[in-house]
Amino acid sequence: MIRQKIQINSDRLTKAIDESAGIGELSEGGIRRLALTDEDKKMRNTFIQWLKDSKLEVRVDDFGNIYGRREGLLPDAPAVLIGSHLDTQPEGGRFDGIVGVLAGLEVIRTLNDYNIQTEKPIEIVNFTNEEGARFEPPLLGAGGATGHFDKEFVYSRKDKDGKTFLEELKRIGFHGEKSSRFQNSHCYIELHIEQGPVLEHRAIDIGVVTGIQGIDWLEVKITGQSDHAGPTPMNMRKDALYVAAKLIQIIRDTIVSENSEATATVGRMEVKPNSINSIPGEVVFSVDIRHSDDRVKEHLTQLIIEKLSVTAAIEQLMIEIKKIWESSASDFSAELIDIISETSNELGYSSQKMVSGAGHDSKYMNEITPTAMIFIQSEGGKSHCKEEFTSRNSIDMGANVLLHTICKLACASN
Amino acid sequence: MIRQKIQINSDRLTKAIDESAGIGELSEGGIRRLALTDEDKKMRNTFIQWLKDSKLEVRVDDFGNIYGRREGLLPDAPAVLIGSHLDTQPEGGRFDGIVGVLAGLEVIRTLNDYNIQTEKPIEIVNFTNEEGARFEPPLLGAGGATGHFDKEFVYSRKDKDGKTFLEELKRIGFHGEKSSRFQNSHCYIELHIEQGPVLEHRAIDIGVVTGIQGIDWLEVKITGQSDHAGPTPMNMRKDALYVAAKLIQIIRDTIVSENSEATATVGRMEVKPNSINSIPGEVVFSVDIRHSDDRVKEHLTQLIIEKLSVTAAIEQLMIEIKKIWESSASDFSAELIDIISETSNELGYSSQKMVSGAGHDSKYMNEITPTAMIFIQSEGGKSHCKEEFTSRNSIDMGANVLLHTICKLACASN
Repeated sequence: MIRQKIQINSDRLTKAIDESAGIGELSEGGIRRLALTDEDKKMRNTFIQWLKDSKLEVRVDDFGNIYGRREGLLPDAPAVLIGSHLDTQPEGGRFDGIVGVLAGLEVIRTLNDYNIQTEKPIEIVNFTNEEGARFEPPLLGAGGATGHFDKEFVYSRKDKDGKTFLEELKRIGFHGEKSSRFQNSHCYIELHIEQGPVLEHRAIDIGVVTGIQGIDWLEVKITGQSDHAGPTPMNMRKDALYVAAKLIQIIRDTIVSENSEATATVGRMEVKPNSINSIPGEVVFSVDIRHSDDRVKEHLTQLIIEKLSVTAAIEQLMIEIKKIWESSASDFSAELIDIISETSNELGYSSQKMVSGAGHDSKYMNEITPTAMIFIQSEGGKSHCKEEFTSRNSIDMGANVLLHTICKLACASN
Repeated sequence: MIRQKIQINSDRLTKAIDESAGIGELSEGGIRRLALTDEDKKMRNTFIQWLKDSKLEVRVDDFGNIYGRREGLLPDAPAVLIGSHLDTQPEGGRFDGIVGVLAGLEVIRTLNDYNIQTEKPIEIVNFTNEEGARFEPPLLGAGGATGHFDKEFVYSRKDKDGKTFLEELKRIGFHGEKSSRFQNSHCYIELHIEQGPVLEHRAIDIGVVTGIQGIDWLEVKITGQSDHAGPTPMNMRKDALYVAAKLIQIIRDTIVSENSEATATVGRMEVKPNSINSIPGEVVFSVDIRHSDDRVKEHLTQLIIEKLSVTAAIEQLMIEIKKIWESSASDFSAELIDIISETSNELGYSSQKMVSGAGHDSKYMNEITPTAMIFIQSEGGKSHCKEEFTSRNSIDMGANVLLHTICKLACASN
């Protein structure tokens, strides 16, 4: 049930997003705020001040994740967590994970405005190095705090200048205590921009995220023979790029005909010798295959490997296919999905269930506590660029869904 | 008519090729002897010594081209020219143009052995910077001496370190006189390895080259939209690489169905942003189109431009196509072609007429004097690499055809 009158304060939330956008601001409009840099430090200190101003108890854990806790009425009740991340890509946008963290703060501020006491405590979390743009892989803070990654692994990650995660964590003064990690959690809810074009294209207000797609990465190497473009007749060539072009079409045709949700992307390609008047002798390209059901993903990956192998054999060129990375799919909590859908409906917002193609802190949180996500529109599906844009109206709707979802979860004593 | 008993000295020619291969020798087997480097200087000095040992009169012109002249019986008769080049690619082979120059030297040595006096003088030429591997474009020496290129243009060409052709020409001591260029020439004959697989594949001894194909170079740019690989459904993508892959197939299908002699090669491709989990937003690739008849080449180029434009329009992606370079076709002398064919037959070698897909010094020589070329087999069609190989037997056959062709041309007084 919704307390109809209660709404987040749109001006205040907009102001917080604007202030964040000034920290690491790029001249062309976006933000550069890589994890554990001076810009990140400045944003973290600003954020902590905001948490304290909202009377939250602040903790920092051993991965630099920042928590702001609002106590509930029931002693020892598990906490309802809200989170996302304040770091960005090298030329990132001003919305991305930032909106999720600051909408969480706005939820707390709104509860304070209305003097609403919840049964369960509420905690906001800002996770370290979600983007993976400075320290690879992504999601180091969430992965560390949930135990998905070993502490040694996280601490020893290096940036391109050879500085470690731990060195930089200490340098900016955010090396906290292991005991500060969340310990007793009821659930985790994350608001994020969609980073895809679907909600805008279908004019849907809210995406109710049912999980995160699993990912397979393949590396495909085609070996032909590099010869002079001039003296080699067409029928005597072993042109690796011509065959690669065939394979790229087969990949797309296979995915499109097999499954409407799946995606396959050939994003990276290297051609050798890459000279205008030489027939390409070697082409290496990547394939990114995604689906929310790991069995379907695995089926599609095998199907693609088979079709590529057969086609290369017909063309009499050598092919090597390696799986270079794999990430399994995440299914979010059915109960939380229902609550978010219901809340959207009650607020009069259109919504649809959807699966996330991108990874989020929710991926690892889902391993330790019931988790779900709320998506809001991304204009043109753009993100990780200065053109990234989400309207104030979309942000307000997402924050109101977050507010009332949190209210429902934290006000109940179960 | 052939003097049946006269043959080139195979051991001597092999020895000369072996000695050349020791200058700029790479540890893996090939040669690195870029134009106007110290290696080139060493080879030039060795070559001049060989010319002098064969009692030739040596000249060096204002582009560093080296001439060795054997006088004829008739005063003021035009010279029969034999030539090619001693420079190589950065990782070139030991045959390429070298065989042409040293087979020319062997022709002179053989004539000396048999005390054969010709009516017309004979000149051997080593052209500077045929490869274009150090100073672009290729064929600078031949292009300069024939007046195809202005002297200022040739002199101002720079290598990748900013050194000019003229500086380096002077540094190695090969800046000769304009008056040393050939002035009164009867014809030009060049022996060269095929650099393609056709002769070997068909087990033909001698290629009688009827001309050099014209070349068009296109640059094609496809602009789509770069989005996250994850959150963008297949039917909402503007994938520049997928469309480029379609175009590459169309290019090949068009060429193969239209004309059996024509070639089209997509050799160079750049993908942006070239990241595994990003849909490619921009792809730029080159197209190299060749045919021995410029009208056919132009027709094919226009047909390809039309088909690519229509396909991009259907796929709703932007396409820009620019012609970035063009080289017209060369038709060699019908009379010389007949003499070479006839000579091959008389020697009992199989031969076929063929067009050269690669450029050669002959291209510019053909602009000022009747010209033709003799091709010999390239194993696997390989060149410009350490695997480049032509058998001793092939070289001997080519050199014998050259010897008897030159005899016919230089012994007649017309």
